[in-house]
Parts: sequence; structure tokens; C-alpha cells
Amino acid sequence: MTNGDQLRAAMSVAVDEFRRTVPLVQCLTNIVAAQWTANVLLAAGAAPAMVDNPEEAGGFAEVASGTLVNLGTPYPETVAAMRAAVEARRRSGAGWVLDPVAVGGLPWRTEIARELVRAHPPAVIRGNSSEIAGLAGAAGGRGVDATDRPEDVLPAARQLADEFDCVVAVSGEVDHIVAGDELVRVHNGDVMMTRVTGVGCALGALMSGLVSVAEPRVAAITATAWLTVAADRAMATAAGPGSFAAILLDEVAAVDGATIAAAARLS
Amino acid sequence: MTNGDQLRAAMSVAVDEFRRTVPLVQCLTNIVAAQWTANVLLAAGAAPAMVDNPEEAGGFAEVASGTLVNLGTPYPETVAAMRAAVEARRRSGAGWVLDPVAVGGLPWRTEIARELVRAHPPAVIRGNSSEIAGLAGAAGGRGVDATDRPEDVLPAARQLADEFDCVVAVSGEVDHIVAGDELVRVHNGDVMMTRVTGVGCALGALMSGLVSVAEPRVAAITATAWLTVAADRAMATAAGPGSFAAILLDEVAAVDGATIAAAARLS
Amino acid sequence: MTNGDQLRAAMSVAVDEFRRTVPLVQCLTNIVAAQWTANVLLAAGAAPAMVDNPEEAGGFAEVASGTLVNLGTPYPETVAAMRAAVEARRRSGAGWVLDPVAVGGLPWRTEIARELVRAHPPAVIRGNSSEIAGLAGAAGGRGVDATDRPEDVLPAARQLADEFDCVVAVSGEVDHIVAGDELVRVHNGDVMMTRVTGVGCALGALMSGLVSVAEPRVAAITATAWLTVAADRAMATAAGPGSFAAILLDEVAAVDGATIAAAARLS
Repeated sequence: MTNGDQLRAAMSVAVDEFRRTVPLVQCLTNIVAAQWTANVLLAAGAAPAMVDNPEEAGGFAEVASGTLVNLGTPYPETVAAMRAAVEARRRSGAGWVLDPVAVGGLPWRTEIARELVRAHPPAVIRGNSSEIAGLAGAAGGRGVDATDRPEDVLPAARQLADEFDCVVAVSGEVDHIVAGDELVRVHNGDVMMTRVTGVGCALGALMSGLVSVAEPRVAAITATAWLTVAADRAMATAAGPGSFAAILLDEVAAVDGATIAAAARLS
Repeated sequence: MTNGDQLRAAMSVAVDEFRRTVPLVQCLTNIVAAQWTANVLLAAGAAPAMVDNPEEAGGFAEVASGTLVNLGTPYPETVAAMRAAVEARRRSGAGWVLDPVAVGGLPWRTEIARELVRAHPPAVIRGNSSEIAGLAGAAGGRGVDATDRPEDVLPAARQLADEFDCVVAVSGEVDHIVAGDELVRVHNGDVMMTRVTGVGCALGALMSGLVSVAEPRVAAITATAWLTVAADRAMATAAGPGSFAAILLDEVAAVDGATIAAAARLS
Repeated sequence: MTNGDQLRAAMSVAVDEFRRTVPLVQCLTNIVAAQWTANVLLAAGAAPAMVDNPEEAGGFAEVASGTLVNLGTPYPETVAAMRAAVEARRRSGAGWVLDPVAVGGLPWRTEIARELVRAHPPAVIRGNSSEIAGLAGAAGGRGVDATDRPEDVLPAARQLADEFDCVVAVSGEVDHIVAGDELVRVHNGDVMMTRVTGVGCALGALMSGLVSVAEPRVAAITATAWLTVAADRAMATAAGPGSFAAILLDEVAAVDGATIAAAARLS
């Protein structure tokens, strides 16, 4: 079924529902990717809101359609906001998405990520292979870039998925989405996505919006297909990373659910 | 007179004076729109300076041509900087511009916005309809996006304009600028402006620079026309939100005062 | 020798080594230029990591290939991170790069910059003419823009280079790189570089990566040539500052070491 008609139909519906409902996506994210993340969400059809201070993050998490916690540039104050937001999602029984940027390589944020996941397991954990390995307790990478391949860290991904009953999406040349005993691979995308900062961060944000209109597994697969199919199309005219970034936003806005579902190369 | 030759002449002069004087615009703004705001100001011909820490914000506000306070992502420390900057503008009898992002929907920043406005009324308050209603005490929106139309919140805009003797600019499909008993509507612009993050934030920044070379009412109308006329021109070749954002900067830089004044559709 | 074959050969090798080694560049930078800086580093072939919190900055500085300290928007917490990072570089005998944004004009950061430089002199100090004069103790500018020409502040640059035994790179219409008794001027580049925010910040980041593969003098000259040669090429098709920024990233990625070395106009 994983690459079957049923999944593609669910993906198509998820994209259309996303656009119809305009999910309000709270992003507690980093100073590098905040603008880009908001622009990807706006291009996709969501309403981003970067409410990331300790005074307001909890209250806003109660009303937001989705909440993203991205550990790219955590500070004591924004970490307090993340704790408040996750606690609010827990109280209201709502999901959230964790992007454990550089977890494994940096001890402080690794402990924060683990604390948040234990406090209220997220619907989806999205990271590169080093981050997923790092969160699961294996040796970490050297920063934000992956030093392993997704297929190498599948045991770590399965361990996290089991322990926290969540979907784990491992980004890489081939994206691997683990949900329970199932594994779906998305083969779209281009290495140019690694030459623009925050593409992974924006993927986590798209997942945060999609979990408001689809089950977490479908949300993670759909977000991955949306961004990578748009990237494939952008590569037709991009001359380098600068033009690629602009065209990628154009394509995220242009593709509809049926196009994404049909163009996704799944296995 | 509002749509007459006198206003258009003042707009044209304001743009040219802006470029001639290169206003130094202090921006206490948010982590999402900081880069975009600086780029719009640079494209327009100003000198942006994001001096937003508590140690320096007050001193810099004493020498800056304009000061923008934007509540997009306030933190305790940057709020302290905003207080210092507004107090410095008060002491030197200089104006400032308030962009009450998400005010009304979020209680903490709503109180901060009201405190700042009472401490030293700004020259211009610029927001979307929900934010203007929220600042005036009506029910607020759900985040940074507007849930009302500008024409629906004109009583709130007029109340703020009267109480604080300031110009109130309400952004929307048709922009409404209220000054005393006068109302000027700007009909330029495109819905694509809502698909790029920070366009409204940049509009407030442009107003902050223009108040150094024109009376607040002319500054607010001119900034609105500048950005929306540039957007109209950008739509001729934009393929989506990514290319639109880049071309918008090109057009902000390319249009001169006479072109803006002639292309503005006012009522 | 300064404009001779030996220097050009070293520049070409430095660019190729940069791409081969993918330097991990820690950036403690500002909220305006963080995304742009990361994108320039990625386009060039480095791995940027904005680890700028007090809990992690020191530990990460021990393993990073290069560390950039940029004072664009300092806050008490990020300043604590800068202190920790510079101290870690000192302990491990590694270099770092200082970008003293707005130093001279703003007293708080001026003291911070001097404290950091005295604690562990950087490999390269990169600033505009006002900032270099300000750091050396002369009267400062009005913000982030330069009010002097590089040739006017050569005594200040030489004083800093002597006192701290470091390279001083002064950006301007003609870039001046001072190292000991030597002065190299780079004549490439376009005024359009001043209409995009963070181009100077990105130059400092490139230098931070290049000091891991070349001596500081060659690193500073190579980074300057890389960005200004790319800018010259981008101007062939740019229509304004928005398209220029995107094309500049494309060109930073496209040019190789031999092209940069050949196209650099040195004196």
C-alpha cells in the first residue's frame, strides 16, 4: 500500500485541505531560517506566526493549528517558550513537530530535545540522519549537516518511532519516513536543496501545518513530496542556489495536490 | 484635495527628498522580517540600522532620522530596547512609527503596544485591520493575518487617530490612511503582497524613513503608494511569490517620485 | 609580489581547498544577515553553523574550522556567547574573524569589540572605513554605513594590524587589505553590493572559512576577490538589488579558483 493509490489519494487530499483551511502554524524556530520558513509556509498556503517568547508561546500554542519546535539557534528565553508551547499542546491533546537541528553534536540542545520529547511526544520528528541518530543516543554529527545516510540510521529512527509512538522522517538524498513497522521512501529532490539554508527547517514547518489536516504519517510524506517535487521542477530553470531558492517558492505555490501525488517517486 | 494635484506633488517630493537625504532608519523589528526590511530600505535609498538592544537603542534613537518599533517577535530584552528608544524620541521631540503586529490576539504585546503609545504617541500607527481593531480595544485576530477589512475598522482607526493625534494606516486590499477628519484610500497593490512575509513590516519601515522628510500623513500615503506601485509593476513578470519578492526590490529601487505619484490610484 | 603570479596562485589554491575541505564555519552574527550569510557560505561550498548561545558557543568553537564574530545586533546573551567562543579559540590556538559592525558610532559594542580583540587577537578584522577608524579609536560613523573612504583610514588600519599582529581588511569602493607592511587593493565589485544588506557580513564569513585553508592575508584577499568578482559577473544580468542578490549567490557558487584569481584586479 505504501506506494499505492490509497496513499497518493490521501496526499492529494491533504494538500488541498491545507490550502482550503489555511492552517495557522506557530513556529518556534531559529534566526537563520525564520524568514525562509515563513515564506515557504505562505507559498504553500498557510498562515505562519513566529510566536516564540515565553510570555505568549503557551497561550498561542493552544489556538494554533500546528506548532513547530526547531532547535537551530536556541537561547534560554526561546527554550522557555518551547517548553511552554509543548506543555500547552500536551494539555490540549494536540500534536507538534520537532526539528532537532544539530542534536547529537551539541550537548545542551540534545538534552532539551530529549526533555521536550519525553514531556509530550511529538506527532513527527524530522531531522537529517545525524540528528536522528543523535536524538536516539548514537554518536552525533559535526553540526547541522548530516554525516550519515538515512538508510544507515533506520534502527535509530525505528527506536524513536517505537518509544514515542511518533512518525520519524529522516531527510537525505532519499528521504525515509518511518511510522510503526512501515517505511516509505521519497526519491524526489535535488542536492541543490542542501545549498540553500533552511530547506529542512521549512520541511518541518510544512509538516506542522499538514498534521492539522492529515494523520502524521501522511503529513510527513506529503510535506516531503511537496517540497521535493517543487525542487525537481525548480531545477529545470535554476542557474544556482540563489535563483533556485526563488523559483522553489514559486513552485511550492504553483503545484497542486494532484500534481504532487502523481510526481512523487515513492518506494 | 486628497486625490488632487497637491497631494501627488507632495508625494513626489517626499520620495526624492528621501533619496537625497538617505534617512538613517532605526528598526526595532522581528527576526522574521529584519533582513527583508533592511533590503527594502536599501532598495528605496535609506540607511537601515537594526539597533535593538537595551544598551544602545536609546542613544541611537537620539540620532536616527526615523525609528520603527515592530512587535513581530518581542522578547523581554528587545522590549526594554523599544521602551528606551521611544523614551529617547519623546525627550528629543521626534516621531516614531508603530507596527503593532498581532496586537489584539496576543495579550502581552497588546499591553506593550498600548504602553508605548501612551508614553509618546507615534507619528504613524501602521497595521492590518485586526491589529488596528485590537490596539483600539476591539476583539483581535488570530495572529498576523487580518480577519477584517480596513473599511470595517475605520471607527477604531479614527478613535486611535483622535486619541493620540497621529496618522493611522490600515493595510488591506485597499489601504486606508486616516489623519484627523481625512481619509485617503490607496487602491494599488496585489494579493501577492500577502504571500511574502514582511511586506507590511517593510511598509512601516518606509514610513519611518519618510516621516523624516514629510508630514506624517504624506509619509504614510507615499510609503503605501511606493510599495504598492512597485508591486503592481513587479506582477508584470513575477511567476510566484519567490520571484515576486526579488522583482519587488528591483522595482522599489527603480521607481522615482514622479512615477509613484502618477501611478498611485487614490480616492 | 602583491599583484603577482604567486599571490594569484595562492588565491586559486585557497578557493579549491575551501571547496575540497567544506570548512565548518561557526557564525556568531546578527539577526539581519544570518540567513544571507549562511546562503553565501553554502553557495561557496562551506558548512555554516550559527551556534551563538552561551551554553554551546565555546564548545563548538573548539571544533569549528572557523569562527566569525559579527557585532551587527549584539544582545547580552549573544555577547556572552562571543566571549566564550573567542576564549575557546584562544585556548586551542585557533584564529577567528571580527566584523566590528557599527563600532565607533555605538559605545557599548565598541567596548565589546576592543575587549574581544585584546583577549585573543583575531586573524582578520574586516570592516568598512568608519568601523576600522572607530575600532582604532578615531571618531566613528553614524551606523553601519561608512562615512570615510578606505584610503582615508589606512593609518588606523595599520595601527590595528601592528598592535594585534593581524590582517585588517577595509571594505569600500576599492577594498584595502593591510598585512604588516603590505597593502593589497582589490578593485572589483559594484556599488550594488551596498544596496543588499549583509554583503559585508558575508565577506567576513567567507574570510572565516578561508583562514582554515590559507594564511590570513591570502584568506582576506581571496574572500574579497571571490565576492567582488562574483558581483561583477552578477551585474551583467541583474535588474536591481533583488535580482542581484539571487544572481550573486549563483555566481559565488559558479566561479572556481582559477577564474577568481584571473579576474581579480589587484594593485
